[in-house]
Amino acid sequence: MACGATTHATAPALTAAPASVVAPPPAAAAKGVRTLSAESPGRILSVVVTTDSEGHPSYAVTRLGKPVIAPSKLGFLLTDAPAIDRDLLMADAGRRAVDETWEQPWGERRFVRNRFDELRVRFTEEWDAKRTIDVVFRIYDDGVGFRYEVPAQPGLETVRIAEERTEFVVAQPGTAWWNTAFEPNREEYLYERTPIEEIGVAQTPLTVRFEDGVHLSIHEAALVDYAGMNLVRVDRRRLRAALTPGTTAAKVVRATPFTTPWRTLEISDRAGGLYESNLILNLNEPNRLGDVSWFKPGKFVGIWWDLHLGNKTWHAGPKHGATTAEAMRYVDFAAKHRIGGVLVEGWNKGWDGNWMGHGEAFSFTEAYPDFDLQKVADYARSRGVRLVGHHETSADAAHYESQMEAGLSLYERLGVGVVKTGYVSEALGARVVGVDGQVHNAWHESQDMARHFVRVVEAAARHHIAIDTHEPIKDTGLRRTYPNWVTREGARGQEYNAWGHPGNPPEHETNLVFTRMLEGPMDFTPGIFGMKTRSPDGVPTTWAKQLALYVVLYSPVQMAADRIESYEANPRPFRFIEDVPTDWSETHVVNGEAGDYVTIVRKDRGSEDWYVGSITDENARSLSVALGFLDAGRVYRAEIYRDGAEADWKKNPTSIVIEAREVTAADVLPLHLAPGGGAAIRLTPAAGRVGR
Amino acid sequence: MACGATTHATAPALTAAPASVVAPPPAAAAKGVRTLSAESPGRILSVVVTTDSEGHPSYAVTRLGKPVIAPSKLGFLLTDAPAIDRDLLMADAGRRAVDETWEQPWGERRFVRNRFDELRVRFTEEWDAKRTIDVVFRIYDDGVGFRYEVPAQPGLETVRIAEERTEFVVAQPGTAWWNTAFEPNREEYLYERTPIEEIGVAQTPLTVRFEDGVHLSIHEAALVDYAGMNLVRVDRRRLRAALTPGTTAAKVVRATPFTTPWRTLEISDRAGGLYESNLILNLNEPNRLGDVSWFKPGKFVGIWWDLHLGNKTWHAGPKHGATTAEAMRYVDFAAKHRIGGVLVEGWNKGWDGNWMGHGEAFSFTEAYPDFDLQKVADYARSRGVRLVGHHETSADAAHYESQMEAGLSLYERLGVGVVKTGYVSEALGARVVGVDGQVHNAWHESQDMARHFVRVVEAAARHHIAIDTHEPIKDTGLRRTYPNWVTREGARGQEYNAWGHPGNPPEHETNLVFTRMLEGPMDFTPGIFGMKTRSPDGVPTTWAKQLALYVVLYSPVQMAADRIESYEANPRPFRFIEDVPTDWSETHVVNGEAGDYVTIVRKDRGSEDWYVGSITDENARSLSVALGFLDAGRVYRAEIYRDGAEADWKKNPTSIVIEAREVTAADVLPLHLAPGGGAAIRLTPAAGRVGR
Repeated sequence: MACGATTHATAPALTAAPASVVAPPPAAAAKGVRTLSAESPGRILSVVVTTDSEGHPSYAVTRLGKPVIAPSKLGFLLTDAPAIDRDLLMADAGRRAVDETWEQPWGERRFVRNRFDELRVRFTEEWDAKRTIDVVFRIYDDGVGFRYEVPAQPGLETVRIAEERTEFVVAQPGTAWWNTAFEPNREEYLYERTPIEEIGVAQTPLTVRFEDGVHLSIHEAALVDYAGMNLVRVDRRRLRAALTPGTTAAKVVRATPFTTPWRTLEISDRAGGLYESNLILNLNEPNRLGDVSWFKPGKFVGIWWDLHLGNKTWHAGPKHGATTAEAMRYVDFAAKHRIGGVLVEGWNKGWDGNWMGHGEAFSFTEAYPDFDLQKVADYARSRGVRLVGHHETSADAAHYESQMEAGLSLYERLGVGVVKTGYVSEALGARVVGVDGQVHNAWHESQDMARHFVRVVEAAARHHIAIDTHEPIKDTGLRRTYPNWVTREGARGQEYNAWGHPGNPPEHETNLVFTRMLEGPMDFTPGIFGMKTRSPDGVPTTWAKQLALYVVLYSPVQMAADRIESYEANPRPFRFIEDVPTDWSETHVVNGEAGDYVTIVRKDRGSEDWYVGSITDENARSLSVALGFLDAGRVYRAEIYRDGAEADWKKNPTSIVIEAREVTAADVLPLHLAPGGGAAIRLTPAAGRVGR
Repeated sequence: MACGATTHATAPALTAAPASVVAPPPAAAAKGVRTLSAESPGRILSVVVTTDSEGHPSYAVTRLGKPVIAPSKLGFLLTDAPAIDRDLLMADAGRRAVDETWEQPWGERRFVRNRFDELRVRFTEEWDAKRTIDVVFRIYDDGVGFRYEVPAQPGLETVRIAEERTEFVVAQPGTAWWNTAFEPNREEYLYERTPIEEIGVAQTPLTVRFEDGVHLSIHEAALVDYAGMNLVRVDRRRLRAALTPGTTAAKVVRATPFTTPWRTLEISDRAGGLYESNLILNLNEPNRLGDVSWFKPGKFVGIWWDLHLGNKTWHAGPKHGATTAEAMRYVDFAAKHRIGGVLVEGWNKGWDGNWMGHGEAFSFTEAYPDFDLQKVADYARSRGVRLVGHHETSADAAHYESQMEAGLSLYERLGVGVVKTGYVSEALGARVVGVDGQVHNAWHESQDMARHFVRVVEAAARHHIAIDTHEPIKDTGLRRTYPNWVTREGARGQEYNAWGHPGNPPEHETNLVFTRMLEGPMDFTPGIFGMKTRSPDGVPTTWAKQLALYVVLYSPVQMAADRIESYEANPRPFRFIEDVPTDWSETHVVNGEAGDYVTIVRKDRGSEDWYVGSITDENARSLSVALGFLDAGRVYRAEIYRDGAEADWKKNPTSIVIEAREVTAADVLPLHLAPGGGAAIRLTPAAGRVGR
């Protein structure tokens, strides 16, 4: 619950807006086979941009001289004009180097270094309209971002993009971790692990490991007023951008000048390097909200798991979950256990009947008669707890926007600081007001919905409310610009273990760290102790792994997701959930391989405590963590929550050993993870000093 | 040049129009897990249609009990309404059996048997609007066609299809032959040969061979007023329909009632069975044009290869190819060598400068000053030859339509019977008048362009002109309905051997037979004797293979594509080109494997002659053809054009042996094909009788 008044350190504006009137191509612009290149500050990565004999542009990326991205096309297909992808003259339109450090109001780490070399390449058509686009590359030692910048220019007032020509030709064989795109289920799928040549239609981030251990993650940053990018494998190892369809023939409609989102390539010689990269945050615009100290990271419990278990219902009736009494019971529990928030789902009218696809039925101000919102909110406040709001829209963004202001005002008045929004629908089931003022069916990651999600976050900020989006648009680092967009779902969460057929397999969270978590925080909702559910395998982890997830799966708001009865019955392991913070000053990945295991250490932002989380897939593992990150010369008390000797996600998930010992920076802690297991450790400075 | 007055035998109307007012769901309609099934007449193939517990529909196909298509989704995503793909009640809405034979006015065979069992499945939504769609399956012994039929119904006056949900989950591992889709180059690519799991974004037809030798080709029939279907591999062996984008957010906009094209599955236990299947023609509507005896199959030479070699130019200037004198020289050659047609490309104004993307510059009535169209046409007629017209549009369909009537009228007046149209452009480079009356950029296989191509063919029919479309929409068997749409390009043709980097490899034509040729006729333009070109490997076949292509690659109009100087210098091999007909009464595939080799025999429709064509890839092969198809009791003179002993596409492409011998139905002719080689054989009844 730390964080407090940390304010955003204003960074200099890094992102030059495209020139409002385009200059003629620099004198150096030339036709035919040409090359421009640039390197990262530490000479780890380089980018080469070329035009071929027909003026088709392409780019390539190498790491220490070894190809990562082979020559890959650039350009646009337009719906109302010829493509911008050939007969292009290329010129070096400027370079610069940046090295600065900025501070996050909350996050995995407090300070973020932003160090890159930039190359701006200007492409101007040789013929006809002489249209001009810039491609700007920012080259870091651990990744590359590039985006198109389209200046204002005569004859190109509005750009209607049918598709990008952008390709990512993966240069080496390897293994890919990915999730299908354009499917009905809101981007919530089990991960595919295939050779690169067997990638199909993929969401981003898409993660690749080459045979030599170099890892690559393809994603995007700063998805604003643009269509989300998916990847289709065209042939061999050639991936192509597949923008999400919109509400006209063009997937994107923009007035010039404009910039696209950054296409991002995180590149590291180890899996953990992808997770540690700040590339995506760095490519986003600085904080636009100013002081966001009104947002407090923290934990919450809620009327939720009982709903997914089928014990209670969202809708009215004899099993209605969101009653005044039940909510007050949760408030009492939260107050007693240092949990700052209580979520109540199903409190408002609209859940009755066939609600999916009928978001118009939801009220965002009217509670069911058996739920006294004012009373619960008042009671919570009296106990030092805040309600976590809930706005399920069934993806009817148009309807939601008609009540959003009223709903957020109500919550603000009641002292609600965080609202969990929901967009449950099947494919192309969102409904949104398009640029034509009409309501359209839309994909969650369409340009229109991208606009909607930002409108919600902006509106919420005006009410000093933070947003936790479920069934969201993908995370592209906009929490830097809108620090009240604190977390989201966007992958299979814990609820699949309540009713999924199949549920999440034991490897699921080890996949998440190296795919979904590369986007940013996820509201996975860990902390289940009741392992038997409606899903055939129940919750397929050990208890220790459930605890470790609080460290491994970062979110500034974290749910203690189980029914409070489970916690009341198991106070010893619950203690870790009470203790673990949700805001960090440092984060390091000690070890890990996608889909196999991972160990992460983080330092509490509000104290000198460190936390270790380690998880494995279905295989037992013996790992270790060297404690060199601790202050030398200090003694720490290690509170260890580890799998019992007989622990096993299938046979014995509740076997846990909780023990304490003293350690120093010179120690190496062994981690013995059971099948589907984990370890969670709190390291607190003790009174003593080393050598005492 | 046979064919003459063969008229189309009117078949009974097979295709029931969807009911104009939808009836309530049959009493048998029911919810939950349900199954309907049907078999082919010979019990070779069966189809099973199911709904799951959420009312999602799917279908599956087996051959002799072995799965070919695993359960695969059905349905539509709409841009302005919820998807039609769940909460569907299923009912058996009727079955019938058909067995009839119809006659082609021209073709690979004269009579076509149409024998299938049909199952009509009606899906009606349980909730809300209770929207209804039918899916009609026609099950043949060698394939399955199914299509959606959307009846007129309240609330569904206009259907705006964002995407079909249609899937093709290939049930077994195997090898796939396919071409990428949505690429710049007008569907002209080298074939991919990959495991099914490595298919990317594919055009149809897409061909698969399972490990047990069963072959599957996925394509479509009767693509009318709808978007062309491509296939994307989503994951594993799951392919999904990817409709070609249109000029609104919907890829297809149709008023109810309407039917989609047929989604076709040709299934055979040998590769040749795919080529022999009449599934696609059978699923098209009968001839709408009535007597088309005005179209005469035949051969043509033309001012063409010199253009691709760079010896001449399309545009005006000192190297202009289409001069009056040059055209008359070609007419003289054609008249002398029994060639019925002369093509002249570059005759009309508009080729100067950067013409690609500038179709608006083309005139379809005005010749360049050095080309006297009237004089050439008159001269041709006087020599018993007809000009083959040429309309390059640069894919500016809107501009073409503004002059099409004038251009066709001019040609009709001049006695032109066939017009070769061209649609050169890069991706999304076509320009067409959409339903909103505005000109849009469009893909060649968009719904708007599908309409355009039919408008051209209908206009041409009114002028008794046949159309040979280059850079076309794919062929889906519409030649049955519009028998003046006689051939088209739609894959890499011979011109890639003039300038391609790379050119077509020796396996190219062996790929074509089992992929592109499954659509229908192709104007590949065989018959090159001048093997050195601007392409690095030149023309990578032997001479004998060039001759064999006249039999192997069917087209009712076939070009003798080389410069006439090549033919004048090589009269002996040219003799086969003079002799070979372009209209057949029978066609059989003797042997063949996709991408490796193929042997096809065809019977001339205008005589008792048979022809054999056999080709191989880069590997030499010893094959044979048993002559059992000949009339028993008759002696035939076999004129054999075969590779010389030292023939080799790379080292000795011109080595050819031309010899004759007498054969009977009891003989088996050996075929020794050189690397990149072939064999072409004419079998003519001789005076004698067997046993004489």
